[in-house]
Amino acid sequence: MDKKIIGIDLGGTTIKFAILTTDGVVQQKWSIETNILEDGKHIVPSIIESIRHRIDLYNMKKEDFVGIGMGTPGSVDIEKGTVVGAYNLNWTTVQPVKEQIESALGIPFALDNDANVAALGERWKGAGENNPDVIFITLGTGVGGGIVAAGKLLHGVAGCAGEVGHVTVDPNGFDCTCGKRGCLETVSSATGVVRVARHLSEEFAGDSELKQAIDDGQDVSSKDVFEFAEKGDHFALMVVDRVCFYLGLATGNLGNTLNPDSVVIGGGVSAAGEFLRSRVEKYFQEFTFPQVRNSTKIKLAELGNEAGVIGAASLALQFSKEK
Amino acid sequence: MDKKIIGIDLGGTTIKFAILTTDGVVQQKWSIETNILEDGKHIVPSIIESIRHRIDLYNMKKEDFVGIGMGTPGSVDIEKGTVVGAYNLNWTTVQPVKEQIESALGIPFALDNDANVAALGERWKGAGENNPDVIFITLGTGVGGGIVAAGKLLHGVAGCAGEVGHVTVDPNGFDCTCGKRGCLETVSSATGVVRVARHLSEEFAGDSELKQAIDDGQDVSSKDVFEFAEKGDHFALMVVDRVCFYLGLATGNLGNTLNPDSVVIGGGVSAAGEFLRSRVEKYFQEFTFPQVRNSTKIKLAELGNEAGVIGAASLALQFSKEK
Repeated sequence: MDKKIIGIDLGGTTIKFAILTTDGVVQQKWSIETNILEDGKHIVPSIIESIRHRIDLYNMKKEDFVGIGMGTPGSVDIEKGTVVGAYNLNWTTVQPVKEQIESALGIPFALDNDANVAALGERWKGAGENNPDVIFITLGTGVGGGIVAAGKLLHGVAGCAGEVGHVTVDPNGFDCTCGKRGCLETVSSATGVVRVARHLSEEFAGDSELKQAIDDGQDVSSKDVFEFAEKGDHFALMVVDRVCFYLGLATGNLGNTLNPDSVVIGGGVSAAGEFLRSRVEKYFQEFTFPQVRNSTKIKLAELGNEAGVIGAASLALQFSKEK
Repeated sequence: MDKKIIGIDLGGTTIKFAILTTDGVVQQKWSIETNILEDGKHIVPSIIESIRHRIDLYNMKKEDFVGIGMGTPGSVDIEKGTVVGAYNLNWTTVQPVKEQIESALGIPFALDNDANVAALGERWKGAGENNPDVIFITLGTGVGGGIVAAGKLLHGVAGCAGEVGHVTVDPNGFDCTCGKRGCLETVSSATGVVRVARHLSEEFAGDSELKQAIDDGQDVSSKDVFEFAEKGDHFALMVVDRVCFYLGLATGNLGNTLNPDSVVIGGGVSAAGEFLRSRVEKYFQEFTFPQVRNSTKIKLAELGNEAGVIGAASLALQFSKEK
């Protein structure tokens, strides 16, 4: 039998698992709830138990697996295989995840942060088409990302490579939770889009359902902004244009710096699809020099929820090759 | 005898050569004039002849060498080892440099563009301290650069990775020769510094020798701007501050994206030394999030003119290891 890989996507609500072939085809998948009680001390044991159960169920044994990969929130020490500061898991102290899982299951284990792992997934089996140079940006509650360059996932000297949410797109912009200002995250995360709408609504005088909803104190979401824009609301279109200007500037400078085959946009905000992509691309082209404009593409993510488990499998596969 | 490497730095005026140990110690160096006559057709033959002559002079033979590396102006096809569009060499058609040199000398040959090669040099034996993650920026007539990430020199999908001179630092900025606007090069190359001075002089009303020189139509250089600033000229200090603001924004975003161990600044404008570096660092800190601010350093280049031949040797060494 060909060897298999286990990919795990650890989140604050659910833990997703998959068994994949070494070609990245998902053969089995399942998930369990994340039990974050008692400082998240049940999380790793429940992962171990769930994998044991499934291995038995499928009549497999540890020798059948190349390895296990996992994406996690928080700060990861990829050498040691530990996590710290994953607040949505209640993990505030250092968690020796790799040691616990390897000693319990006897299968090699590799760990990285969830945005990097999603980048590996989109690069391997998604929009990145397994190209050696792919950048992934996820527009969700925050803005994260991961960079694969010359075939390698980048980490940098302190593990911050790929943190594109904190690229400065406006030196005089909004304050960010990171302590500086004008970060991409402040204007293109789900809350960032609403922030831009609230800010611009103060100046907009015309007729707009979106502006009216904001002025009425309704609970407007990023999704609402895009829906109003798609229906032709002038003010909503203005907001989307401003958001895409910032995304085009940031992705343009990623292109000018790294010239990847593609910059892949995922996360909840990217549900706006081609309506978003085409507008980001317009500004990307404005902010890139000709050779980059003609070679680097702006794409939408393709894997959705599966990017995590597929990327985790990719991580395990790379880890097994490096050994 | 331990094997040696030959490094070549091909420029429009001179061709520099060095013989180095595999530890990067320069043992011999020499140079010849670049003969760009007749479409630069004498360049490669003169390189071959010069190396043959030196190999004989030192009683060495081709087996004594790991390889030859070269940095060149123009667009390089690193796979094929060809160069095109090196206008200061009069090379307007594709030059099969690798093929010519390897068939004449029988020593493996590797080629890359001069900014990438200088980056390899500064990373290996200069300010980069052989760290796997180093970015090099050269502030000269133009602004170029090279990126080493996870130990690899990056090229991107069309060879444009590291072209940091065309990062957009001001969406409403000056027109650039590349066809877009607001590029770092327009405000921090030697001519860019003077451009910023001329632009700001229109608004400055106070007492300044620099402004007077500009208003008198004198031929002011980037060096003059920094010299006036170091003497305390208020207007010159304002110009330097603006230039360093842009450099801090660009290097800050390189830090936020790639989190290298260091961003190394070289080229003619960097002759301003610590006066420049400390001011770039101030803005770098303003434009980076805490983990990057505390881990990525802004440094001055250390190798000067030797970066080219040392980096070329590094290229040859990497090339020999990949085979």
